[in-house]
Amino acid sequence: MTAGPNAAELIEKHRATLDQAIETIRSRAYWSPHPEHPKAYGENGSLSAAEGKEAFDALLGGRFELDQPGTDGWSATESSPYGITMGVEYPHADLDVLLPAMRAAMPAWREAGPEARAAVCLEILARISARTHEFAHAVMHTSGQAFMMALQAGGPHAQDRGLEAVAYAYMEQVRVPDAADWSKPQGKRDPLNLRKHFTAVGRGLSLLIGCNTFPTWNGYPGLFASLATGNPVLVKPHPRAVLPLALTVRIAREVLAEHGFDPNLVALAAEREGEGIAKDLATRPEVRIIDYTGSTEFGDWLEQHATQAQVYTEKAGVNTVVIDSTDDYKGMLGNLAFSLSLYSGQMCTTPQNLLIPRGGVGTEDGEKSFDEVVGDLAGAVGKLLGDDARANALLGAIVNPQVGQRIDAAGSLGEVALPSRSLTNPDFPGATVRTPVIVKLDGGKPEAEETYLSECFGPVSFAVAVDSADEAVALLRRTVREKGAMTVGAYTTAEDVERKIEDVCLEECAQLSLNLTGGVYVNQTAAFSDFHGSGGNPAANAALCDGAFVSNRFRTVEVRRQA
Amino acid sequence: MTAGPNAAELIEKHRATLDQAIETIRSRAYWSPHPEHPKAYGENGSLSAAEGKEAFDALLGGRFELDQPGTDGWSATESSPYGITMGVEYPHADLDVLLPAMRAAMPAWREAGPEARAAVCLEILARISARTHEFAHAVMHTSGQAFMMALQAGGPHAQDRGLEAVAYAYMEQVRVPDAADWSKPQGKRDPLNLRKHFTAVGRGLSLLIGCNTFPTWNGYPGLFASLATGNPVLVKPHPRAVLPLALTVRIAREVLAEHGFDPNLVALAAEREGEGIAKDLATRPEVRIIDYTGSTEFGDWLEQHATQAQVYTEKAGVNTVVIDSTDDYKGMLGNLAFSLSLYSGQMCTTPQNLLIPRGGVGTEDGEKSFDEVVGDLAGAVGKLLGDDARANALLGAIVNPQVGQRIDAAGSLGEVALPSRSLTNPDFPGATVRTPVIVKLDGGKPEAEETYLSECFGPVSFAVAVDSADEAVALLRRTVREKGAMTVGAYTTAEDVERKIEDVCLEECAQLSLNLTGGVYVNQTAAFSDFHGSGGNPAANAALCDGAFVSNRFRTVEVRRQA
Repeated sequence: MTAGPNAAELIEKHRATLDQAIETIRSRAYWSPHPEHPKAYGENGSLSAAEGKEAFDALLGGRFELDQPGTDGWSATESSPYGITMGVEYPHADLDVLLPAMRAAMPAWREAGPEARAAVCLEILARISARTHEFAHAVMHTSGQAFMMALQAGGPHAQDRGLEAVAYAYMEQVRVPDAADWSKPQGKRDPLNLRKHFTAVGRGLSLLIGCNTFPTWNGYPGLFASLATGNPVLVKPHPRAVLPLALTVRIAREVLAEHGFDPNLVALAAEREGEGIAKDLATRPEVRIIDYTGSTEFGDWLEQHATQAQVYTEKAGVNTVVIDSTDDYKGMLGNLAFSLSLYSGQMCTTPQNLLIPRGGVGTEDGEKSFDEVVGDLAGAVGKLLGDDARANALLGAIVNPQVGQRIDAAGSLGEVALPSRSLTNPDFPGATVRTPVIVKLDGGKPEAEETYLSECFGPVSFAVAVDSADEAVALLRRTVREKGAMTVGAYTTAEDVERKIEDVCLEECAQLSLNLTGGVYVNQTAAFSDFHGSGGNPAANAALCDGAFVSNRFRTVEVRRQA
Repeated sequence: MTAGPNAAELIEKHRATLDQAIETIRSRAYWSPHPEHPKAYGENGSLSAAEGKEAFDALLGGRFELDQPGTDGWSATESSPYGITMGVEYPHADLDVLLPAMRAAMPAWREAGPEARAAVCLEILARISARTHEFAHAVMHTSGQAFMMALQAGGPHAQDRGLEAVAYAYMEQVRVPDAADWSKPQGKRDPLNLRKHFTAVGRGLSLLIGCNTFPTWNGYPGLFASLATGNPVLVKPHPRAVLPLALTVRIAREVLAEHGFDPNLVALAAEREGEGIAKDLATRPEVRIIDYTGSTEFGDWLEQHATQAQVYTEKAGVNTVVIDSTDDYKGMLGNLAFSLSLYSGQMCTTPQNLLIPRGGVGTEDGEKSFDEVVGDLAGAVGKLLGDDARANALLGAIVNPQVGQRIDAAGSLGEVALPSRSLTNPDFPGATVRTPVIVKLDGGKPEAEETYLSECFGPVSFAVAVDSADEAVALLRRTVREKGAMTVGAYTTAEDVERKIEDVCLEECAQLSLNLTGGVYVNQTAAFSDFHGSGGNPAANAALCDGAFVSNRFRTVEVRRQA
């Protein structure tokens, strides 16, 4: 493999980080090169808090130039959940011009080889990292996440997931050597000798279909996995969350061009209001890879119709927490209250159904009845969000009116154990801020089933009364099998119950968090260690990140010669 | 991971072989634990030539008992291309009984862990290896391969590909550790500590749809990849090639049962004449993985309709050899003559189109005209097959009447440079034995295009006259892109031509053999070193064998607990 004209310095600069990522993926220990603390930025070329805000403000109301081939107009489709005017205009692409230009960039990118490609990807991530504060505002004002969450989940955590994908992609490509000598003995005759060369080649155009709530976190794994394996990546952002990915595309294009590669390896396909280009794009023959996060309906459509492409989807699911027993009742309540409240439950990983035995839950202070547990959880949420400033910092804003409507409708679904409260955000009076609602349902009643077996995205949880731990286990199995789940949580001190819950998760393929009572939450995963989704139940056909996520984004071509 | 009750001894027995396979996959050097020479068998518990023949004869005309749940009848659908009566009756399965029994076997197989599963697979392969002579007759009389080829390709080479798949599957599963401790610093506060466990879990029922011509070679990779990753495997053989896979299923069931596992992890679904169960089977929701070798039509159908499953296909293609120039004219002719003749060209890897510049081919003895080259190649084939005994040993039998019809029709497609000859096999007077036919076509004539751009499976090759090396390169590109190719061959002494051909193969994703003049042929690949197919052109969506072939046959489930 030959590195591009200027890739050697990038390899030198980033090789140690790549090696550490590879090592951590093997050990699954904790590690991240991307700081979580806002004050860690502002030195060594990174933007400080003030500089990041300034950079973000400078983007508002302007044209976001990208210098892409085939730009045939401009579109502005974003509206901040915090009520500020975005007004950023993005280039609209003539795909019949843009796509061929992207494909033309492939041969030189292939020739660069896996190590140079990884180094270029790491440089892109490093520059994104340096602008974490700018991204924080961009993510905040498109997703509705609170600032601190937007900074962490949209910044370092997303960058971690991107780096993880690059490391997996690199590892996968170098499993086969560049060259090999093959010599087969032939008894008394001369051996048969061949010289073989192996080259990783990208599949073709890769399409990233971005989501509204986590544009970078859910977008980076697919983007970087495809780019690192030799594919040009066309980024089709959600119309309400363009800016974080447009910034990403701009940085990627800059890094590529600076180091002698074709910037068209990464391009943006922003769409006009209501244009809906995803279906057409996804079934174009040039598109060979698709990464998608969003609704089950469209994800299923992609899996069934975009059969010319490798399709990686993260869709909806119904996440369950089984509450059987605990030896840290207060810790459990606090942990669950935080999980339900963070980003107003607008995460694919937020628990929805809390399965609680009718007969009560064993605790270190004796048995608590179903009503007590639900009441105490409502109390814990109320306490966590009792202070408006703290609540605003945790809840963020409601991302779209549909979520608000679901909160309002929740009261008609059952007995409300905790009503949702509307808050004002003094910094952003235009934001819709809502606390979680908890509704009690009787798991034995068929009419309740339809409610708790449907995904109700947003801060709506169901406290479902079940007859026993065994019924909880059976309902958990049915929920994962039929509806899928990104996460499963459980609290139990009983070994047999724990074993049964583990068995369900192993058999139905769901990621399980057991007895979390401290500062780790069921809805959060850490790159290099935790898998996000399993890829084995209806909620997603891929996990972030594993070998399967990268191995089919390229193929290996062999050239053999008589030696 | 806990090994099954009797898996420890198997791990002890096979661990070194597994390690050597893993090491060879990394180095891509030559290695095989399965001897190619017929006389290597007969000791250490393996069947000698006579014992293998005897074992095969004992199966004819009898019921092939498998003791599977849900057997509801018997079916016999085989007829030997050599004309002998097979008459073997196989169990016909009630799938509504058999499939649930297979799925019920999954939990214990999952719990056994990757190493025990690999060891069980290696024991199955070892017992198959010991019965290589028996398999040779079974493969010969279902595929029509000549005995020596049936022994080698159906025996050790198929076993190598099975072992390769097991090694890949094992490596992929152990990339994630069984357990990990994760500790995230929290400044002055205590770190967050989690204990994590990771388990590889199979996707579900795996379906192998076997083919007529290479039942074991093309069947073993998928069968063993799925079994080693925790999935039960239902084997649906081609109705004309049941015996080699039925023997495989029987041995697998014996090994599983002997070592405390459920034999229903591997089962046979033989079909009745004309029953055509593949479509129904392939779209059942329980079926999560499908391996298929056969027609493009049905392969495309599977890719488009069996969207509930991971589908791995090997379909048809049009294989090309570009003949530009050579410094070993005789070696080239001999090599090509063998490639065209082996198994009467009934291989997915046999060259079909020989692209030869109209202006001639440079050789060490000066320029040879198009007609000279075609004539000399015809002469080389004629010489190779001049002796009937030798020809019979190389050609085998025509697998079905359609191939014979294509040979007979070839004369009408263009000027015949080498007519096909019919031979008699003195040992099997019922066999149809045919030598290859070579037809000259003018690559510039549109009416010829339809002929050479369609797959003509069997011993029919087209010597296509092209204007120049550049035109050959362009036609090669178009052929691979539109029709797919399992193999590409080329002869050239010109660096620029070589580079252009390499570029086409890298860009269109095809495996290239350059200037083969000795005992390695374009239509043969070696496990652990060569990739069979690329998975990146229309001939196949997977390669044998790489990470992508195994990584999505299982998922990893994580259970994390506060530490």
